[in-house]
Order: sequence, then C-alpha cells, then structure tokens
Amino acid sequence: MITTHGISSDLAQLRELPIGLFDSGVGGMTVLNAMRRLLPNESFLYLGDTARMPYGTKSVETVRRYSLQIAELLVSRGIKLLVVACNTATAAALPALREAFPGLGIIGAVEPGARAACRATKSGRIAVIATSSTIRGRAYENAILSILPNAELSTLACPLFVSMAEDGLLEGPLAEGLAARYLDQIFRIPREQGLDTPDTLVLACTHFPLLRGAISRVAGSGVTLVDSANNTAREAKALLESSHLARSAGRSAGMQLCPGSVRFLTTDDVPRFTRLGELFLGIPIAPCAVELVEL
Amino acid sequence: MITTHGISSDLAQLRELPIGLFDSGVGGMTVLNAMRRLLPNESFLYLGDTARMPYGTKSVETVRRYSLQIAELLVSRGIKLLVVACNTATAAALPALREAFPGLGIIGAVEPGARAACRATKSGRIAVIATSSTIRGRAYENAILSILPNAELSTLACPLFVSMAEDGLLEGPLAEGLAARYLDQIFRIPREQGLDTPDTLVLACTHFPLLRGAISRVAGSGVTLVDSANNTAREAKALLESSHLARSAGRSAGMQLCPGSVRFLTTDDVPRFTRLGELFLGIPIAPCAVELVEL
Repeated sequence: MITTHGISSDLAQLRELPIGLFDSGVGGMTVLNAMRRLLPNESFLYLGDTARMPYGTKSVETVRRYSLQIAELLVSRGIKLLVVACNTATAAALPALREAFPGLGIIGAVEPGARAACRATKSGRIAVIATSSTIRGRAYENAILSILPNAELSTLACPLFVSMAEDGLLEGPLAEGLAARYLDQIFRIPREQGLDTPDTLVLACTHFPLLRGAISRVAGSGVTLVDSANNTAREAKALLESSHLARSAGRSAGMQLCPGSVRFLTTDDVPRFTRLGELFLGIPIAPCAVELVEL
Repeated sequence: MITTHGISSDLAQLRELPIGLFDSGVGGMTVLNAMRRLLPNESFLYLGDTARMPYGTKSVETVRRYSLQIAELLVSRGIKLLVVACNTATAAALPALREAFPGLGIIGAVEPGARAACRATKSGRIAVIATSSTIRGRAYENAILSILPNAELSTLACPLFVSMAEDGLLEGPLAEGLAARYLDQIFRIPREQGLDTPDTLVLACTHFPLLRGAISRVAGSGVTLVDSANNTAREAKALLESSHLARSAGRSAGMQLCPGSVRFLTTDDVPRFTRLGELFLGIPIAPCAVELVEL
C-alpha cells in the first residue's frame, strides 16, 4: 500500500518503484508509449491479460474481478502508481480498484480523454470513436456530459480499427478507405450537406492512436484529435508530481530499474505478445523482459 | 448416447432429434447455413460460446475442456449428431470428443475441407488461408499431407478477414483491396514472375465464406475455392444417411422441431449474438430462438 504521508525514507523508496499499467492485451502500450515519452526517468511494469482478452465482450462483473486480480499482482510486485490502460476495464472497475487499494494513486483511461476533449472543443460538438463495447457502455459520453452538459455528441463504434492496428495496416489508401467507411457519416457527408460537424474527435480506444494519420486525413484538417493515451499519461505525470513520487533525472544511484525500462507480464503466448507489443511500442522488446504469469 | 444398433423405435426417436453444432462465436453459422441448405428436413441446435471467444488465443487444453463442456450440454438437450463448426475446437478437441461420446457421430471442420482440397487440385499446389491460430497449429497442412504427401502447400494467416466478415465488409473495392493485401503474395505476384501458383484455395476459417466473392476475384478465375463449411455439411449429410438418422421429407408428423428450424444457445450478450448471427446466417433470427446458457 502506498501513502504519500509516510516518513521521507519511505517516500524515497516508493519513488524508485515502477509505474504499473494493465490492459486486456497490447492496446494499452499506446499509453505506455506516451508515458515513456512524458516521464523518461520512470520505469514501468506492464501487464497484458492476453489469455482472457478481449474484455469488451465480457460482463462488467467479470472484467471487474479480472482487474482486481491484476491490480493485486502488480501491487504485490511493487508499484507506485496504477494506470488502467484499457477503456473497458476503466469503465468496469475504476471505483472498485480505488476502494480496494485506497492508498494507491490510480488513473483510468476514460476521464483524461473526456477532460481533454472538453478543453479542446470550441463548438461543443464532439465525436467519440471506440470499440463497440465502449460505445455501448457510454462511459465517455457520461464523462463528457458531466463536464459539458450541453455538448453535442456523435459516438461511433469502429471495431475494424482494432484488427487493422493489430495487423499493422496503419496508413495508405486502404487504411484511409476503411477510416472513411466509418467516419464519413460523421464528417464528410454532413459537411457536404452544409451541416455542422464536430470540431473534436476522441480516439477512445487504446488501439486507435496507431491509426492517427489515416483518421486525421479522413476527418479533415479542422478537426482536433484527442488521444486518450496522451492525456492519460499527462494526468499520471501530474499525479506523480503532486504526490512527490516522480523520479528526478539526477537521483539514479539507488534505482533498481533503469529510467525508461519496462518489465512486461503476459498471461498467454509470449511470442505473440512480444511481436504485437513491438508494433504498438515502436521499439524492440527483449524476450527476457517478458514474463508469463498465471492469473 | 446415440447408437445406430438400437431397436427401430429408438432409431425413429433419434431421427427426430436436432443436429448439434458449436463454435466459439457466430462463425460456425456458415456451416449451419450450408447444412440448412443441404439438409432441409433437419432441425438444428447451435451453441456459440461468445463469452469465452476467441478460442484461437487459448491453450489447446483449455479449448478441449470448453469443447467437452459444450458437447455435454448439447448431448443433454438431445442431439443425433455433433458438428464441431470451429477449426480451433476441431484441431484441439476432436479425438477427445470422440472418446468422451463414443456412440455419437461427430464431424469436425478440418478434415472435410482438407479432403475436398485434395479432390479439387490438379497440380497438387494448394493454398490454405485461415486465422493465425489455425495456421500456426498446422491442422490443415497435416490433414492435406496425410492424403496427398506430395502436395505443395502455401499457408497464410488472414486475421483481418474475421473482423471484415463480422463488420459486414464483404465486397467492393475495400474488401478486394484487403483481400489483395494478403493474397497477392500467393497469386498475383508469383504469377507476374512466371512462377506456378496454387490451383486450389481452402477457406479454412468459418468466417471466410462470407468473403468468397472478394477472395475469388483477387485469387483469379483459375483458382478453385474450397469452402470448409460446405464440405463439412456434405460429410454430415453422408454420415446421417449411412447411419439411417436422416429425416425424410414425408415423416413430419411426430417432429418436435420443424424442418429447418434452429434453436440457438449463447453464453453471452444475446443482442450481439443475434445481430451478428443474422449477418452470417442471412435470415432473421427471432429473439425467442436464442437462449442464454451458462457454462
């Protein structure tokens, strides 16, 4: 259990611990990526529950139970902050996680993206694209409307984007063609009819930032893309700093884990996890950095 | 337990039972579809284990355990034949199922497709496309090579085809563009280099028959498409007839289930199952025909 009110030697020890992240699979690595860029002095412990993915088709109770199991494991390994790098798990389990681990800072994937969208929009017209499960669960809609009650929301499930990202189909005419198949109904077609269209588009799935280029070209240059990964990383940074848990560049002598290093845990199929992880992370993953765990 | 050596009144009762099919989700409905066309006098009991799908990422032991649970449930409801309408489950569990239910006729999805490909090929060059898990498991490769040891096999995982089928992206330039992204390396590119290419292409995933048009146009007119769904249905018909379990058109008086009727069981999310099922089956599914079961 982590407390920011401990004596200073405890705080110094805590500060050296990695930041824990989890996702049903590799999608949360876009959050990890954003965090590595924003917090270059930190180390990370990432769990992808690939044996039980996808979470999107499971009941809320099941996803909550899985999330609590994973948090238990990460906390037992020693982490100073927990980032739920998965929209489904955030929607299902964030309050339960905060209740189960009251001293631990916990950041979810939904609210940072919703807050950033509300800051970005000028017209109040916001589009949200995500997996079918996230769209059906209305977590982003609720989070946005609690900040901007008059926001005009367009929400759309883009399930193919997940497999496109996992298959490495990120740009080019095919990727843009597929993006247009979903997004034209929100942007191009209403625009051609002289109707108002959203000025802000939330990429509300951890896979979607990989398709940012294609999505942006199809949505049009006037549309601000809000990336839940980047905004989750920003809120994690702010929480670390306000709780004096951020590592500083100079204090490297006692570190057990190098700045920027990541330890991966996966529940199934290490080679597939490593291969997909490299695509999402954009850097090679050493086989020895990936550990198979049972949950 | 079903026996073909029972007294004739037992056989008559057995004959009236539905044919059981199962899959991890809705993909097996392409097999159901083929069976409904080929066996219009039969009724069907279809289980889609959507709560635990996909099977492709799970260990062989787990998929075997799930398959045995499902078969137990279907047998307890009363079926006269079991069709494993899922490539992963067939590869993982067919021998275990035959051992657990020795009196029951059981048809898997792999061997009928492999046999049909060996009958169709003239050159002995056969291409197999499937999900990553089926390709990795080499079930089709082994089945084909046991019949045609000198066959020249090209195998390729086409994971996006599954989500395309589930998203209704079945034809048109985008579907063909995606098909070409996978298939050009087997057909167009070697052909342009003057190399020999396969004359037979096995659609070794229950989802792929939905994309038959796009796949066929990209593979080229000289390529015979072998559909594991149709061939599984054909072998099921042959087994029913040889064991005198086929319903005849005239004998409808004592039937509990109408010819062509299907009862669906799903382990999660009835609305999603119904919506996707209609896409795969090509006919409406009445909500009252779908029952949520726990496994």
